[in-house]
Amino acid sequence: MRLSDLPTPCLILDRQILQHNIARMAQAVARHGVALRPHMKTAKSIDVARMALAANPGVATDGHEADGITVSTLAEAEYFTGHGLSNMLYAVGITPQKLDQVAKLNAAGAGLMVITDDAMVAEAISAHSLPPRTLIEIDTGEHRGGLSPDDPMLLEIATRLGRNLAGVCTHAGHSYGARSDQDLQQIADAERAGALRAAERLRAAGHAAPIVSVGSSPTALADGNFAGITEIRAGVYMFGDLFQAEIGTHGPNDIAVSVLTSVIGHRPAQNRLLVDAGAIALSKDRSTEATGNDQGYGLAIDVAGNRSLGRSIVSRAYQEHGLIDLDPDLPAYMPPIGSRLRILPNHSCMTAAAYDRYFVVDTGRDAVVAVWPRVNGW
Amino acid sequence: MRLSDLPTPCLILDRQILQHNIARMAQAVARHGVALRPHMKTAKSIDVARMALAANPGVATDGHEADGITVSTLAEAEYFTGHGLSNMLYAVGITPQKLDQVAKLNAAGAGLMVITDDAMVAEAISAHSLPPRTLIEIDTGEHRGGLSPDDPMLLEIATRLGRNLAGVCTHAGHSYGARSDQDLQQIADAERAGALRAAERLRAAGHAAPIVSVGSSPTALADGNFAGITEIRAGVYMFGDLFQAEIGTHGPNDIAVSVLTSVIGHRPAQNRLLVDAGAIALSKDRSTEATGNDQGYGLAIDVAGNRSLGRSIVSRAYQEHGLIDLDPDLPAYMPPIGSRLRILPNHSCMTAAAYDRYFVVDTGRDAVVAVWPRVNGW
Repeated sequence: MRLSDLPTPCLILDRQILQHNIARMAQAVARHGVALRPHMKTAKSIDVARMALAANPGVATDGHEADGITVSTLAEAEYFTGHGLSNMLYAVGITPQKLDQVAKLNAAGAGLMVITDDAMVAEAISAHSLPPRTLIEIDTGEHRGGLSPDDPMLLEIATRLGRNLAGVCTHAGHSYGARSDQDLQQIADAERAGALRAAERLRAAGHAAPIVSVGSSPTALADGNFAGITEIRAGVYMFGDLFQAEIGTHGPNDIAVSVLTSVIGHRPAQNRLLVDAGAIALSKDRSTEATGNDQGYGLAIDVAGNRSLGRSIVSRAYQEHGLIDLDPDLPAYMPPIGSRLRILPNHSCMTAAAYDRYFVVDTGRDAVVAVWPRVNGW
Repeated sequence: MRLSDLPTPCLILDRQILQHNIARMAQAVARHGVALRPHMKTAKSIDVARMALAANPGVATDGHEADGITVSTLAEAEYFTGHGLSNMLYAVGITPQKLDQVAKLNAAGAGLMVITDDAMVAEAISAHSLPPRTLIEIDTGEHRGGLSPDDPMLLEIATRLGRNLAGVCTHAGHSYGARSDQDLQQIADAERAGALRAAERLRAAGHAAPIVSVGSSPTALADGNFAGITEIRAGVYMFGDLFQAEIGTHGPNDIAVSVLTSVIGHRPAQNRLLVDAGAIALSKDRSTEATGNDQGYGLAIDVAGNRSLGRSIVSRAYQEHGLIDLDPDLPAYMPPIGSRLRILPNHSCMTAAAYDRYFVVDTGRDAVVAVWPRVNGW
C-alpha cells in the first residue's frame, strides 16, 4: 500500500518524527529525574503507547509508576486494558456515576486511578465496594478544575478519601498561552510549587500522598527544580502541530501527523484549490489564530511531506471541502484534480479525533509501513 | 435504558422534533412542486434516512428521483447501499481516482451519481468501464465549486461526458450568510436561475440534462418560482442547531440533537460549571459567533430538554472539559457532581460527527426508545 493508493481524506503518521518527539520528551523528563506518564489523549493508539513507554527511562521515585499512562476517556482506559496495559490515570474529574465502570476496569487489571476536587465525590469513592486510588486535583493557575493548594477543603477531601488517597495532580494548561520563555518558566515553576505545597499539607496532616503528578507538554520541557515531583504527564508532544510549533514546544519540522487530501477543484482566478479535507477532516480548531502566525485550518505541504507549497493555508473549511489559498509568492499552478497534498493540523488532538486509524509512513517515503487503529468516543 | 443510565458525553436525538423538522421541509418542498433529495451528511443514519424518505411526497418530474438521497462521503454511499437504498448523489467533486470505488458501489446497486466541473475529470468518467451518471456542478454565487452558468467550459464538459451527463447541480451555501429575508430571497432566486440557465444552455446545444438539482436548507424553504427545478437537496434542516435557529431556518425549540453531559466540577466564585463535554464532544465550531447572539460552544439546557438554564453557555472547550458560564440572572446554584445537562450545538453536522450512535428519546421523556448507529469517516 502506498500513499497514492489511499482513499482521501485520511490520517498519515510519520514514525521517524514520532520517534524523534518521543525520544526528546523522554530525555527531557529523564534530565529532570522524574518519571513520565505519557498522556494518550492525542494518539489513542496502543502502538504509539508502546513506543512512548519503551522510550521511558523508568525513574519513578516510588518504584512502580514508570510504566503508567494517562488517559482522557474511559474508552481509552478500556482499550489500553484490553491491550495489556495497566497503571493508568484518568485525568478528568470523576463522577460517582462512573465509579462502577472504573471498578469494572480495575477488576480487569486496568490499575486505573481517578482524580477529584470534590468532597461528596471523595465520599462516594470511599463508599464504593471497589474504590480506585485517587489523586486530589490541584489548580495551579489554569482555573479549570482543582482546588487551590491552600484550600481548607484539601484536608477534608483527603480525610474522606482515607486510604484511597494516592496523592495530588495538577495541569498547568495555561502554559499553552505563554508567549515568552519567561512566562512559561513562571507557569512551570508555579505548577510544581503548587502541587508540592498541596502534597506537603496533606503529609503534614498525616496523609500518605506518594504521587505528585504535574504536567503539560510545554511545562514538561521547561527547566527548573523537580525535587518532590514524582511524575510528569504530557501528550501532544508526541505528534506536535502548528500551534505547538508556534509556541516553541517543538521545531517546525517535527509535526508527525498530517491529513492526506486530494485536489477536487480549481479557482485559478483566486489562486485557490479545493481539496476533500474539510471541517470534519481537519476540525474547526483555530489555535494558530491566537499566535502571530494564523494558519487558517492548516498548512498545505506536498505529498512527500516537504514544505514546497510555502505559505499555502486552508482559509475556509466547509463540511467536506477545504479551500486552500495558494502562496502568492509561488509560480501560479493548479495541480490536476486528484493530485495529492498533505495538511498539517492546527491542533493534532482535535484533527486526529476524526479518524479511526493511522496510515504510518517513513519520512519522505511513499510506502505505508503499518496501519494503527485509534480508540475514539467515550 | 434511561437518560440517567447513559455514559456521558453522548448524543441524544429527539424523535418528535426530528419528525416535525422532516415534515416541515417535506411540506415546503411539496408546495414548490419539486422532489426532495434529503442530504444525509448531517444525520448519516439509515433510520433517519427512512424517516426523511417516508415523508417525501415523491413529486419527481422525471418519475424516478423522488426516492433518492444525497451523500457527502463514499462511506455514506457504501453504508446506505448496504441498507438497500439506491439513487444517490455524491455531492462533492469527484476525482478520477475515486471512480473505481464509485463503480464498485454502482455494481452493488448504489445508483450513485457524481458531480464535476472539470473537463479532464469528465474525460476520465467517459473513459471508465462503468461510468457513473454525472451532474455538472454550477456556481450560483457561493464561489466554492462549480462553473459559472455562462462559462464556455460547460458545453465542453457536457461533450466529454456524452451520454453520462445527467444534468446540473448547484448549492447556494452562501445562503447561511444571509441576514435578512430579502438577502435570502435573492440568493434563492439566483440559485434556481443559475441552475436553470446552465441546463437551458446544455439543452440548446443538444445535450440531455434531465436533472436540475439545487438546494440548501435556507433556500429550500424560501418562496419563489421553482419551474424547471427537478429536485432540492437539504440536510441540516432535519436536526437544526443554534446557528440555524439564529438565521431563522427553524424555530428556537426545533433543535433535535443535543449532547448529554455530566457536571464534573464547580467554580462557584465565577458562577461556572465544568462538564465532561469538551471540544471533541461539541466540536470547535463557533458558527453563532457570526450572528448577533454568540453562544460559545453551545447552550446548556436541562436533562429533560427544557430551557430552564436561561442563557448558560459553554464559554470554553478543552479537549474533554467544557466550561459553562451559568446565566447570571438565575439564582446561584451548583448542581452536584454527576448531575446531567444537555448542550445544544452550534452546528449539528460538526457535533454529531464525534459520535457513532444516537440515543433516541421522545420529547420530555427519560426513556431511550432506540439506539441508531451513524456512519462516520470516509
